[in-house]
Amino acid sequence: MNEGLLLIISGPSGSGKGTVVKKLIPSDDFALSISMTTRAPRVGEVDGVDYIFCTESEFAEIREGNGFLEHATFSGNFYGTPVSYVKEQIAGGKTVVLEIEVVGALQVKEKYPDAVLIFLMPPTFDELRSRLLERGTESDDEIERRTRRARDEMEELQKYDYLVINDDIDEALDDIRKIVRAEKLKPWRSSCRIQHFYGNNETNCI
Amino acid sequence: MNEGLLLIISGPSGSGKGTVVKKLIPSDDFALSISMTTRAPRVGEVDGVDYIFCTESEFAEIREGNGFLEHATFSGNFYGTPVSYVKEQIAGGKTVVLEIEVVGALQVKEKYPDAVLIFLMPPTFDELRSRLLERGTESDDEIERRTRRARDEMEELQKYDYLVINDDIDEALDDIRKIVRAEKLKPWRSSCRIQHFYGNNETNCI
Repeated sequence: MNEGLLLIISGPSGSGKGTVVKKLIPSDDFALSISMTTRAPRVGEVDGVDYIFCTESEFAEIREGNGFLEHATFSGNFYGTPVSYVKEQIAGGKTVVLEIEVVGALQVKEKYPDAVLIFLMPPTFDELRSRLLERGTESDDEIERRTRRARDEMEELQKYDYLVINDDIDEALDDIRKIVRAEKLKPWRSSCRIQHFYGNNETNCI
Repeated sequence: MNEGLLLIISGPSGSGKGTVVKKLIPSDDFALSISMTTRAPRVGEVDGVDYIFCTESEFAEIREGNGFLEHATFSGNFYGTPVSYVKEQIAGGKTVVLEIEVVGALQVKEKYPDAVLIFLMPPTFDELRSRLLERGTESDDEIERRTRRARDEMEELQKYDYLVINDDIDEALDDIRKIVRAEKLKPWRSSCRIQHFYGNNETNCI
């Protein structure tokens, strides 16, 4: 089997990255990245599915061993993306999807350069603003703050591997699947196909 | 309109690159790279379609001005791929396809790093050998020479951008089209989409 990859979906608030990821995941080829947290499980949350739950000392140990792709604190609880889970899934041929804001995405890329970074954005700036307005959940100040941040985040675009426009969501998903296929065709991700060429394995590598 | 790109299809003899290129070209998005030559036109050959015909002094001038992606001599005539034609087509949004053997492909990449290099190969080495045998046009010695050369060419694989297996030709074509789409989604090839985002143009960039 060929290796999978780490796919980071990022972009400004209003780019629709949450929806895109939700539509991408229900597939055998994709797996959602799971966060590790020191927060107590809520009713119905399953360890290893919703989160990997751990103690503060377990968390600290992994952090000190450089074992997180990125980590952060919210309301006194620690959250982090363990590199071990990502690597296991990739070795099993999966495309691990991580949805994350722009600053975090660039940090992950620094730590894990093989990651594939996709910048998702609406077709126009006006559309981005309307999407934020339509939600109706944020104050005018908050919308102003978010559109300003979006402008700043756009400055980081050239650090990304790909730019996908989320106008029609099916077209955006199609583009993302094409990117994943193309990335899997990189020669350095093709050891299975190359071994097969020389007759060293029987597998029909995908 | 977004920029097109230069797509180089290469690989060992028996990889089927000629057939792949023939099936790829009849599309509005693709254009075959045209060679410039000092050879006289044959009956039916059209200047600017089959070849760009030129004099030896015209050829020499372009060569001295570093205006060829690659050039070679056959039977006393000069042949070269003019970079000007490729650039014009790319500016017009086309994917210019250049079918070329491995040594030439790597030379073009050196001269034109934006080129996208695809290494095409049969699923197995045995299949490569059978394809050469099936042709029935080459001597045993020639087949031996070509399989030996294929082994050498495989050594260059990691210098390529992508590896496409040509087992089922439709799957190979599908992979190549996905690569082209993914490459067009690179942020540095997306100036049209980015300008559109900021409201600086009306075009719906593809």
